[in-house]
Amino acid sequence: LKEIKVTLWNEYIQERENPQVKKIYPSGLHRVIAEYLNTKTGLDVRTATLNEPEQGLPDNVLNNTDVLIWWGHVAHDKVNDALVDRIYRRVLDGMGLIVLHSGHFSKIFIKLMGTSCSMSRWREGDENERIWVVNPGHMITNGLPLYFDIPESETFSEFFNIPQPDVLVFISWFKGGEVFRSGCCFYRGKGKIFYFGPGHETIPVYHNKYVLKVIYNAVWWANPSEGPKILIDGGPPSESLEK
Amino acid sequence: LKEIKVTLWNEYIQERENPQVKKIYPSGLHRVIAEYLNTKTGLDVRTATLNEPEQGLPDNVLNNTDVLIWWGHVAHDKVNDALVDRIYRRVLDGMGLIVLHSGHFSKIFIKLMGTSCSMSRWREGDENERIWVVNPGHMITNGLPLYFDIPESETFSEFFNIPQPDVLVFISWFKGGEVFRSGCCFYRGKGKIFYFGPGHETIPVYHNKYVLKVIYNAVWWANPSEGPKILIDGGPPSESLEK
Amino acid sequence: LKEIKVTLWNEYIQERENPQVKKIYPSGLHRVIAEYLNTKTGLDVRTATLNEPEQGLPDNVLNNTDVLIWWGHVAHDKVNDALVDRIYRRVLDGMGLIVLHSGHFSKIFIKLMGTSCSMSRWREGDENERIWVVNPGHMITNGLPLYFDIPESETFSEFFNIPQPDVLVFISWFKGGEVFRSGCCFYRGKGKIFYFGPGHETIPVYHNKYVLKVIYNAVWWANPSEGPKILIDGGPPSESLEK
Amino acid sequence: LKEIKVTLWNEYIQERENPQVKKIYPSGLHRVIAEYLNTKTGLDVRTATLNEPEQGLPDNVLNNTDVLIWWGHVAHDKVNDALVDRIYRRVLDGMGLIVLHSGHFSKIFIKLMGTSCSMSRWREGDENERIWVVNPGHMITNGLPLYFDIPESETFSEFFNIPQPDVLVFISWFKGGEVFRSGCCFYRGKGKIFYFGPGHETIPVYHNKYVLKVIYNAVWWANPSEGPKILIDGGPPSESLEK
Repeated sequence: LKEIKVTLWNEYIQERENPQVKKIYPSGLHRVIAEYLNTKTGLDVRTATLNEPEQGLPDNVLNNTDVLIWWGHVAHDKVNDALVDRIYRRVLDGMGLIVLHSGHFSKIFIKLMGTSCSMSRWREGDENERIWVVNPGHMITNGLPLYFDIPESETFSEFFNIPQPDVLVFISWFKGGEVFRSGCCFYRGKGKIFYFGPGHETIPVYHNKYVLKVIYNAVWWANPSEGPKILIDGGPPSESLEK
Repeated sequence: LKEIKVTLWNEYIQERENPQVKKIYPSGLHRVIAEYLNTKTGLDVRTATLNEPEQGLPDNVLNNTDVLIWWGHVAHDKVNDALVDRIYRRVLDGMGLIVLHSGHFSKIFIKLMGTSCSMSRWREGDENERIWVVNPGHMITNGLPLYFDIPESETFSEFFNIPQPDVLVFISWFKGGEVFRSGCCFYRGKGKIFYFGPGHETIPVYHNKYVLKVIYNAVWWANPSEGPKILIDGGPPSESLEK
Repeated sequence: LKEIKVTLWNEYIQERENPQVKKIYPSGLHRVIAEYLNTKTGLDVRTATLNEPEQGLPDNVLNNTDVLIWWGHVAHDKVNDALVDRIYRRVLDGMGLIVLHSGHFSKIFIKLMGTSCSMSRWREGDENERIWVVNPGHMITNGLPLYFDIPESETFSEFFNIPQPDVLVFISWFKGGEVFRSGCCFYRGKGKIFYFGPGHETIPVYHNKYVLKVIYNAVWWANPSEGPKILIDGGPPSESLEK
Repeated sequence: LKEIKVTLWNEYIQERENPQVKKIYPSGLHRVIAEYLNTKTGLDVRTATLNEPEQGLPDNVLNNTDVLIWWGHVAHDKVNDALVDRIYRRVLDGMGLIVLHSGHFSKIFIKLMGTSCSMSRWREGDENERIWVVNPGHMITNGLPLYFDIPESETFSEFFNIPQPDVLVFISWFKGGEVFRSGCCFYRGKGKIFYFGPGHETIPVYHNKYVLKVIYNAVWWANPSEGPKILIDGGPPSESLEK
């Protein structure tokens, strides 16, 4: 079995500048997720951050990535449009993309969704989030209970301005009164995209075993298949196939 | 019952410059569709073209449009990005959008789909296209037979690089050996989008009674509902709803 | 415009036998819904109950019904299998079906869903149910706010064992900690089916203006289109369509 | 990695009674598929037929099956209703089900779809079937070209009376003028169901390498995940989850 090449991208700003965040993730939240994924077999994990050369994703990295995990929040507008276009083309050509939490407002997610990806309500309320499985046969729910709690979480709420997911896997309940489609699968071109809601930086969400398990499962789901070659830009006219 | 305000937008270039197209649509293909729609009650139809001031869609027109019908082919890149953004926001805010034929490569359709909207094959073969209904309960199939033929048509083929439609209504068969998802419904924000495949400019497709019927039905389907107000760009944090 | 022939079916048992229910719905909950629908134009509303001849739905009624609304709870097993089959065929042939609340366990809903339609949790807790719109462009959300509350409601919870809806319109939040896909659209054959969660008999849910509005909107959505004729049982072999 | 326990069920009648079929599949078509699957690692393959004790699927077999592959045609009505119910419950509890060709009219497929599963047209025309990939990122398309041909095939045609698939993978083109949704994925309960169109018994379809590849891929897709436990029949009321 071929190893899945996973690249974990983090803007990695708040962990360096905000003491509260630094305390939870001293080396960056990407490190915590990477360490977990490294305990698993079948994955070849590396990390990348915004402040690295070519914003961490030069061609030799991006083109050798099977599944890209994306975390961003305060620096969405710093990501180069050219990089966004390169990621976009890689996804349409088969690369898996897992977008975490505030990444809903990243350029790449907005571009791939075709909608504003805004929410009609949100709140840093440190309220209980309860994540319910609504598709218990989906491989992303492997090893999960019917629901699990994140005792303190940022409240994300409907209406979440995304296309209806091809497959909806999780719905979150928030103690303050909101619901949110927090686990969403999308097929786009040859690529698979998974959006996963939890992950506010001031709370140790990525130390939660179920949250990590979901990310791990999603890597397997988003792993590229060797499907047919497609033309991303289209091409010249084709001959008739009539015989 | 409130009348539906329909604006038919056509780039209107080939009908003026290409004698073959001019012969079929002397006043532009938008005029043929508009004349048909004007025979129906409940619609308030106007037309707009690329060469008009503000590319035919100044605010007072766009903001008073319930359903926008879009036909473009050779001048997609001439459409101003600012106009595309205005249309995009209007769709997310509820305006219906019907994209015809070559409009699959329009900026607005690509932006709203989040994919390249390319096809892996296509051909000006003047081959028979047979349009099959695959959702006979959908209102867009009102008054249609199980299939109908366009004796000479441009061949559009899979893989069509769009998101899986929320509801798939038509699949086209082409004599030369291809298939194509030619009737596709998408919900985006508060807006409804219908893509309809047939419509090559060198063939009198918009004189076909079933093609016209589909466009008419789609206007009714895409007509905005008075659903809840949403925030397209998001906003400040919200209070808890707990009681 | 042709009137929509609506038949409201209610098993009508608890309103007669349970004083608590009788107090809320002295003439049956179907009467309350029917009275509301009768204030609207464009509908021709009648009611039917289990204790009527042919369980309220003889051929001349069922075959003249455009949209059937179904409420049942304690007598699902009393409904004749032959009647269930007749309703099933009518739905596949285009009749709209709106299934309310406990109707999730009706024979007809289970048959049309192909799943057990069970819930993994439920509770008569008289807790606040908050119904969130997750598709604000859908006509069933016409005239609704982004969410509305039912201050005391029966708690229905995921995992709700239904097929993923073709279009998901509502998700309910319950104060006790659950979520539920409470507004679900399904296309089946030529028919349209809407499941709507609220409606426990010991609470005046059908006096709520938004609940009534949803039912009214759903009638319009489920109203049959005049789509192509289909063969429900299949038939003999067909000739080639080749030319 | 745990092996996937695959059971291939065939009614196995025409191969014994019809010389034309016997010539193509002397030991039954299930043997040809089983031999192919046995060349792969990771699968534990057995076969079962209608004339075996308990119609080939006693509890100790069915309960130890991860993925059931089903081929039937002339004896759908011979399959015991009790067996159909046992399969139904196994699927809702997670067992994968792959239904081939004429299996569209099997009791188990009709029960799980909730529709008649009929086609509006069909024909034993020995015409070319061309199978197009419309979701090139789906794992069932692994190793496939954009389309492949079955030079002589039975023509299956829309309208195919099934629910809209959760994910549509293949659309077939037939030389005689029809189209057919021939590769359809459904999530039901904890189970995954794949319907695959090709497979007429008088033609060596199951000797085609791409057809076999699709079945193999589908086994991996339909393989059960270890998702949360669900209640198939529902149960008693639950406590509030409020804290």
